[in-house]
Amino acid sequence: MPDKYLKLGILISGRGSDLQSVIDGIEKGEVAARISVVISNEPDALGLKRARRHHIPAIVVCHRDFTTRQAFEARLLEVLGEYGVGLVVLAGFMRLLTPFFLKEYPMKVINIHPALLPAFPGENVQQKAVDYGVRFAGCTVHFVDDGMDSGPIIAQAVVPVFSTDTGDVLADRILKQEHQIYPKVIHWIARGLVRVEGRRVHISGAGKDVESSLIEPVV
Amino acid sequence: MPDKYLKLGILISGRGSDLQSVIDGIEKGEVAARISVVISNEPDALGLKRARRHHIPAIVVCHRDFTTRQAFEARLLEVLGEYGVGLVVLAGFMRLLTPFFLKEYPMKVINIHPALLPAFPGENVQQKAVDYGVRFAGCTVHFVDDGMDSGPIIAQAVVPVFSTDTGDVLADRILKQEHQIYPKVIHWIARGLVRVEGRRVHISGAGKDVESSLIEPVV
Repeated sequence: MPDKYLKLGILISGRGSDLQSVIDGIEKGEVAARISVVISNEPDALGLKRARRHHIPAIVVCHRDFTTRQAFEARLLEVLGEYGVGLVVLAGFMRLLTPFFLKEYPMKVINIHPALLPAFPGENVQQKAVDYGVRFAGCTVHFVDDGMDSGPIIAQAVVPVFSTDTGDVLADRILKQEHQIYPKVIHWIARGLVRVEGRRVHISGAGKDVESSLIEPVV
Repeated sequence: MPDKYLKLGILISGRGSDLQSVIDGIEKGEVAARISVVISNEPDALGLKRARRHHIPAIVVCHRDFTTRQAFEARLLEVLGEYGVGLVVLAGFMRLLTPFFLKEYPMKVINIHPALLPAFPGENVQQKAVDYGVRFAGCTVHFVDDGMDSGPIIAQAVVPVFSTDTGDVLADRILKQEHQIYPKVIHWIARGLVRVEGRRVHISGAGKDVESSLIEPVV
């Protein structure tokens, strides 16, 4: 692997559909990065199979095998270090990371969340959006800090919510946008285009066209 | 005024630009309602002049003239009653209404808020959205309950937020959408098309086309 590619460590807990979108983006030549390792905290995560199918090292670090959160995170850091990871990408990873972990990767851990943050942080948020009765929902790629889905926002995509939507229907509509914006953001970071100023994130060269491209055409 | 028109009582505190959008919608024949009275809790509100210019009764009910919130609200109710108001429309009205008022107009008080609720309830929310670093903002028309900007959502419109935006620039962009959706919602209510089921609001005959029309084209 030539050094010009940013080395990704992708953390998963489940089926890894966002992982797949990153794999696809790389294989299509749209993402200037390479996946060095996939780590799952769940031994049965389907995403592990996906990774192996693409000849990507896929490793289980099960949180239940550790007596403390810090010991679990220390093992994660060890694996990421072994693979020379430069950017940690959370893709449906269901454990909160503490400052112990985050201080080793400052502004180098990103997450994708299936809601238009700051609305609906936490879990099961597509159903919560439907139950609340919002007309629009979406997804958010953000840097991870030690709060719950609270770090600086890199990109968002919007989708409409229709009166007949169930949580599952909405989740599918949002997922399509997740698969669009996550590879794009990783590419921007790999190219060094992303700059953080306080809470505001600037993308060099990304004029109104690029920023606006993140909204789903709804007609 | 023939009875077939819904009678609106519009409550303001300031310049009344949302009020103007309702006046314009009515004058263009797009809103099946008539404004029976405009009430301001601020004696100097510019919106009072707007109303008078259009020969609409414009009345001051200043909250500072009352020793209790209930006395203030009782006077509001009295005026609204005198004018036979069927729908109370808050348009930049800066006082919270209590259950004492709301029980007289159950699901007949609506508000427009310059944020994509449930994100950013409260005041000065366009600046808060800019400071938070969101990529999208917007406005929300909702039924008023006794919480802060928490009632069932009738309509929302989305606008992009650009890295260079100030709070004022964003506020102007959102305001344009407020002026689109508020008259539209009032027309739907006047025509009896709006039905509330728990927190979810259904608009009869408003298929995907109508719902999606609320998103601002951003390209």
